[in-house]
Amino acid sequence: MASVGVSEALLLEQSWAPVCLGGLQLLAKSCFKDTAYRLLLSDMQFVWEEEMNTAAIQERAQVNQSGQELNRRLRAPVSAFFTHLCEVACPRLAGADSAEFSSLQCSQDRLDIRLKSELAGVPFYWEFRCTPASVAVVCSHFVRPLLAVSMVLQRQVGELGTLLARKDTEIQDYKESGAELSRARLKTEVFDEQSYRETFITQAWCDCCEIPWQDQQRAHSLSLLSLMQHVSSLLFRPLREEYRFGFLAQKKAH
Amino acid sequence: MASVGVSEALLLEQSWAPVCLGGLQLLAKSCFKDTAYRLLLSDMQFVWEEEMNTAAIQERAQVNQSGQELNRRLRAPVSAFFTHLCEVACPRLAGADSAEFSSLQCSQDRLDIRLKSELAGVPFYWEFRCTPASVAVVCSHFVRPLLAVSMVLQRQVGELGTLLARKDTEIQDYKESGAELSRARLKTEVFDEQSYRETFITQAWCDCCEIPWQDQQRAHSLSLLSLMQHVSSLLFRPLREEYRFGFLAQKKAH
Repeated sequence: MASVGVSEALLLEQSWAPVCLGGLQLLAKSCFKDTAYRLLLSDMQFVWEEEMNTAAIQERAQVNQSGQELNRRLRAPVSAFFTHLCEVACPRLAGADSAEFSSLQCSQDRLDIRLKSELAGVPFYWEFRCTPASVAVVCSHFVRPLLAVSMVLQRQVGELGTLLARKDTEIQDYKESGAELSRARLKTEVFDEQSYRETFITQAWCDCCEIPWQDQQRAHSLSLLSLMQHVSSLLFRPLREEYRFGFLAQKKAH
Repeated sequence: MASVGVSEALLLEQSWAPVCLGGLQLLAKSCFKDTAYRLLLSDMQFVWEEEMNTAAIQERAQVNQSGQELNRRLRAPVSAFFTHLCEVACPRLAGADSAEFSSLQCSQDRLDIRLKSELAGVPFYWEFRCTPASVAVVCSHFVRPLLAVSMVLQRQVGELGTLLARKDTEIQDYKESGAELSRARLKTEVFDEQSYRETFITQAWCDCCEIPWQDQQRAHSLSLLSLMQHVSSLLFRPLREEYRFGFLAQKKAH
């Protein structure tokens, strides 16, 4: 039953999900496996994490932070209530409705969240007790995927701009041959990449003031988080290898 | 002469720049002002920082980490050699050639970089001694600007795809009216957003394996870093205000 914990590679394959836990708007990433879990949470100001193995899960199931019993009548083996914990927590940490969560503490140094559910007709409590993640974790799960995604999107914008210019050249040629549109509303303006970039960026900055995974921007945000997950899972392992070797090579040079 | 240090707002207005310092490929962001400086450096695995005020600069100018004298014959007032330090360090921390730097130590916990120059005909040494940045700093200077930039770029991709579809409709109408191109090479393929996204993403992931601010991708990367700086400087202050209030409101709720 002993677990060795959840590997970094497994967690990198997971997607960030926008969640609301105990009134806190957060991004969550989690992996529950073999009576162990890892959880990352961020409000974009701070990033917290928790890593729990079988023994730690077993212990916490009974005793809470105040030293009192968390689940007084719990006699189930860890595998049984871990299965239950997964069933309750996983969908909610992936963005489903999460009324069962309440936040106990939220500061730079600590994020404690309580989950209340029912196991075999008896109340079952769990507490996620997260501490600050390391910068290395933030770089792996946020900075590098976001940089890669931004690079891809930026290239796409450039390439689509070039395609639009080619369409305009084609349209211009039709016009010069005397062709006319059957319906005036089909006419498009010539695409001016420079001015488009300028006006669009000005408008878009305003949208960015909002926390992007709420409300009207949710669909866009989910798509972005999915792109990040693609980058992480498909490319991070080779990237990390290469990068690590590059990094070590640099260090060895001195 | 006393300085209160460099404010976070000032540093947020600076752009990240790809630099090579003592053989290390890094991103650098710095602000030198009023005989004080702040420096952020990252290899995308870790992020280090140093914040120095007037008194600390004065003291370090003479004594190095081993307790020996860094600049034995330095008698200049701090304002004089700080001006010199700016002149030498600033362009190099913004991406100019930087042969004057050598790295003394690079680990998760420490990044020490030595700068050698000449002041009034005498060798002048400086050591930047950076320690790990906090996650809050990484979120402010990397995660949030990158998220905002990604959101903007993603919207641009969507909008340009829509424009391309409209161009195709216009072209189709010309064709249906019997128009023909004067030169066949002007013909473009109908834009298929779905398949474009799929093939492009597959190709682009491969490019992302490279450290993006080197070599052939440098121009794209600089443009991306400039976008990040735009976001940081134009929007971060209102965003941070709003966000902080939102965050506090959330916390107060419990």
